[in-house]
Amino acid sequence: MRDSNRNATPLSGSNPYRTHTCGALRRENVGEEVRLAGWVHRRRDHGGLIFIDLRDRWGLTQVTFHPDNESVFRQAERLRPEWSVSISGTVGERPEGNQNPNLPTGEVEVSAKDLAVLNESRTPPFEVERERPVDENLRLKYRYLDLRRERLRENILFRHEVVRHIREYLSERDFVEVETPLLTASTPEGARDYLVPARLYPGQFYALPQSPQQYKQLLMVAGFERYFQIARALRDEDGRGDRQPEHTQLDLEMSYTTQDEVLDLIEGLYTEIVESLTEKKLLEKPFPRLTYREAMERFGSDKPDLRFGLELEDVSSVAAGSEFKVFRSVVEGGGSVRGLCAQGLGDLSRKDLDDLTKVAALGGARGLAHFRVEADGSLKSPVAKFFSEEQQAELAEAFGAEPGDWLFFVADSDSVVFASLNQLRLHLRDRLGLADRDTLAMCWITDFPLFEYNEEEKRIEPMHHMFTMPREEDLPLLDSDPLKVIGQLYDLVANGTELASGSIRIHDPEVQEKVFATIGLDKEEAERRFGAMLTAFRYGAPPHGGIAPGIDRFVMLLRDEPNIREVMAFPKTQAARDEMMDAPSPVADEQLRELGISVVKKTT
Amino acid sequence: MRDSNRNATPLSGSNPYRTHTCGALRRENVGEEVRLAGWVHRRRDHGGLIFIDLRDRWGLTQVTFHPDNESVFRQAERLRPEWSVSISGTVGERPEGNQNPNLPTGEVEVSAKDLAVLNESRTPPFEVERERPVDENLRLKYRYLDLRRERLRENILFRHEVVRHIREYLSERDFVEVETPLLTASTPEGARDYLVPARLYPGQFYALPQSPQQYKQLLMVAGFERYFQIARALRDEDGRGDRQPEHTQLDLEMSYTTQDEVLDLIEGLYTEIVESLTEKKLLEKPFPRLTYREAMERFGSDKPDLRFGLELEDVSSVAAGSEFKVFRSVVEGGGSVRGLCAQGLGDLSRKDLDDLTKVAALGGARGLAHFRVEADGSLKSPVAKFFSEEQQAELAEAFGAEPGDWLFFVADSDSVVFASLNQLRLHLRDRLGLADRDTLAMCWITDFPLFEYNEEEKRIEPMHHMFTMPREEDLPLLDSDPLKVIGQLYDLVANGTELASGSIRIHDPEVQEKVFATIGLDKEEAERRFGAMLTAFRYGAPPHGGIAPGIDRFVMLLRDEPNIREVMAFPKTQAARDEMMDAPSPVADEQLRELGISVVKKTT
Repeated sequence: MRDSNRNATPLSGSNPYRTHTCGALRRENVGEEVRLAGWVHRRRDHGGLIFIDLRDRWGLTQVTFHPDNESVFRQAERLRPEWSVSISGTVGERPEGNQNPNLPTGEVEVSAKDLAVLNESRTPPFEVERERPVDENLRLKYRYLDLRRERLRENILFRHEVVRHIREYLSERDFVEVETPLLTASTPEGARDYLVPARLYPGQFYALPQSPQQYKQLLMVAGFERYFQIARALRDEDGRGDRQPEHTQLDLEMSYTTQDEVLDLIEGLYTEIVESLTEKKLLEKPFPRLTYREAMERFGSDKPDLRFGLELEDVSSVAAGSEFKVFRSVVEGGGSVRGLCAQGLGDLSRKDLDDLTKVAALGGARGLAHFRVEADGSLKSPVAKFFSEEQQAELAEAFGAEPGDWLFFVADSDSVVFASLNQLRLHLRDRLGLADRDTLAMCWITDFPLFEYNEEEKRIEPMHHMFTMPREEDLPLLDSDPLKVIGQLYDLVANGTELASGSIRIHDPEVQEKVFATIGLDKEEAERRFGAMLTAFRYGAPPHGGIAPGIDRFVMLLRDEPNIREVMAFPKTQAARDEMMDAPSPVADEQLRELGISVVKKTT
Repeated sequence: MRDSNRNATPLSGSNPYRTHTCGALRRENVGEEVRLAGWVHRRRDHGGLIFIDLRDRWGLTQVTFHPDNESVFRQAERLRPEWSVSISGTVGERPEGNQNPNLPTGEVEVSAKDLAVLNESRTPPFEVERERPVDENLRLKYRYLDLRRERLRENILFRHEVVRHIREYLSERDFVEVETPLLTASTPEGARDYLVPARLYPGQFYALPQSPQQYKQLLMVAGFERYFQIARALRDEDGRGDRQPEHTQLDLEMSYTTQDEVLDLIEGLYTEIVESLTEKKLLEKPFPRLTYREAMERFGSDKPDLRFGLELEDVSSVAAGSEFKVFRSVVEGGGSVRGLCAQGLGDLSRKDLDDLTKVAALGGARGLAHFRVEADGSLKSPVAKFFSEEQQAELAEAFGAEPGDWLFFVADSDSVVFASLNQLRLHLRDRLGLADRDTLAMCWITDFPLFEYNEEEKRIEPMHHMFTMPREEDLPLLDSDPLKVIGQLYDLVANGTELASGSIRIHDPEVQEKVFATIGLDKEEAERRFGAMLTAFRYGAPPHGGIAPGIDRFVMLLRDEPNIREVMAFPKTQAARDEMMDAPSPVADEQLRELGISVVKKTT
């Protein structure tokens, strides 16, 4: 439990349930008459006495019942875990040897004079006092009991501190929090909208916001200049492991600003949070800023984990000069040959190497060339014979490889090479234990391409979203070679996870129309979906930009939690159900009739 | 504009758009080279010069363009209101006589050296610079321009400060803000739920929360003890003047607490907000606490405006002894005769008196007896003859009436008497100008009946909601005479408006079941609607209670705004439409098909 709140006192002196919290009493209180309230955390009967660990949000205090006080003792004999009680008594020092140095209240105990049972409890479906693994569906159904356990309680209290910190940091810098509507218009993009039938307009629907993107840009047109909101975003996505129908983001937007200003602001915020609320160490300050190209070339990913090396090297020129046809033909065909160098792998069996090839194949690689650096500096490999001594030395040198190291190479199109070596790199991270859990390697990735080509649908798509401003110098490319345009886009990445994504937006209606045209959105459709914004931009829209860091993911990272459900008070299951409330559920016909809708019977 | 933010500076020294905000420059800056960004607020051409008032969120600064700087001057000639620009120049002192003492920057001006037009603006559909009345639909359609105007901007900035204050006050007292789900179960009560079709569960629906009532009680079962949330509440109500589909409330709940503790906490919060953020005067501290009965008897309302007197008096005993049959029969029939005494009305014509009778009739009164106190202390009235000299003296004495005062009486059932005299009292307040706009008379109303009788449906209903705890001493009445049970219910009222409503909740499953039975909710239905809570209460639920002050209404009151739309950034129309975003609207058939619903064609 956290120390910060340990000494919190009751709000009122006349509270009939307690004079102190269960985290408050110390040796200085010995002799005082006190009253505590909370839950029976543990009960032990020992030496004719009954010991209760009484728990509230602030801590644990040991309460003892003596048989001398017969009627109270008899009541205490009934006590079971999780009963809600109020107890009065005298603070005493614990006998020598019974002290608990791990507990702030561990030097004292309360000798009970009186006991009021406020509510009994059935036997909980799982233990509250101990953190043993419990079936997750049971935890979700009895969420109110799971939340009594230390892990979830501390996660939720921590989350509050993070969000509080964010709000204060931004408010001090003149940001204004503005609430934007939950009932808004459907503008399908990315994920599906959740729809809400409008009773007063039969056949029409509101949509719940996937993000307040348009509203925040309209707030910039409205002159608020510095806006933020801890906003709920709702997306009707197909259940993937770690998705929830609703998640929370810090939505932030600024006017008359630049990419550097946004980055500096958020970097300051994240640094403060990490340093004031956690024990984690930031690997590098200021956060490194890598262009998309650099991130791909060095790490094969735009979400690189910078806690360790294993950087990629491009050996295409060596490969092109070698006798190894596979390599040569790839380079000649416009692809590349890149690799990485791993230390400490020791001897690798045929099976080990097959397994690593399978890892690389996750990124699309059709093969993985491997070389071992021998004691004399030469390379050992089934394909070593295709490389001259000089070429072998060049390969080893590219990585500064030492005897005993392994070199792995993938030859393919850049995108396959990057994806495959990224897989390999992360695999080796885990296998070699290269990444320290208590270290946060945060970095910015910038200069993303504005568009990407969708091979399946044979069309150009925005890489991020369609409101992103191209780099000033790339504006002419919009007409001539749109796939070469770099956008003013930036992602915040920590330990290989994307924490935030943002951009400087288009404020010029002409540029916006050009982008719409590039991605094949015709004027009518653009008007239908983004009419308000397009009109608003005709009224002196300022240059603006922003970012939207996810709160859940950040809290997960700081608390070392493996999934988003551990940092939300009332999450849905992976199948988007609330097992506790039994939602969703059928509703009365009358309700549907009022809404002017009906349920379609499935004809399968 | 507010002074607090006036000196806000740019976040970064390298910002290309501005070095200072438009609220920052003072005489001390004279001679400095500066750059400002913002909107053209006003343009005047005078003496061969062009004067621009440049506006940003922090203020206004005068910029002058001299024809000597020809190319810039020519650009400046194109400037129109609401263009977005960045201007560099030198700070100078304004010439004697041209200073503006109403503006913090009024002693200086910036002599422009350079001008960058960032975005032009069409002519706005209404003036931004002046607060002239504008058609509200136009304001809503161009909300982003309306929000540029001082009134809305200041309301939204003020609202942020209020909410920020609330959060800090509660966080300092160890309250934890917990986000509860937006997609939850439908439990129709009070208003209609907004429903959300669940794509993964055809025929099933989530509901948007009317309030987080059940979740907050579950958080108490979960041991959080002090919870709050600035929560969105959504109700699908039929449009009434001042309703919105979504509103915001401070949702707050505490465990091991008492009514007094909740009242003290909120009273401290409201006092701090009023005193630190407004110029308004609190009429009385601590806030008076009136029982429901006392409020009704003294003011005829459980939302009394305490800024003025005109208190009601019960003259039933005098009336019962009089010769006036109307009065006597009402008292004999179990009703009452009550009245109030008004000073300063002067002479009233027949028509005046008819009008007052119509006002009383709004509360159901079938007549209004009136008496004028004559110079000799006797009463003048068409019905005076039914009252002896002594009885007339008693009537006057009941109010301490003086010559020239008017006495008005209503005889009927208590509820009609109270409602009618309340109408009359508020009418006289406005007519006589008795209430000071800058005074806040806040009070608590307590001890409400737990139930009320619904005459139409011939059944007992909860007065507030079905989770409210009866007074301890009234528990036996639940069985014998439920309509006499007083609940641990409390309302915060200011100047005749209800700001908050709360209660101590039932934590005992047996009491809860008894209340359900009293209002005719059978076990099965109770289980279906509140199953999670009823089960949770079996696991050591602590005594708890809370309150849910509305944020919008409070901000309205503090800003003297007549409707909720003036304190929300993006309100819906009274017909629940978003005119700017055009929501609600039809959606693609494909979307409906995916959700397994169809629109029912109206057959009228």
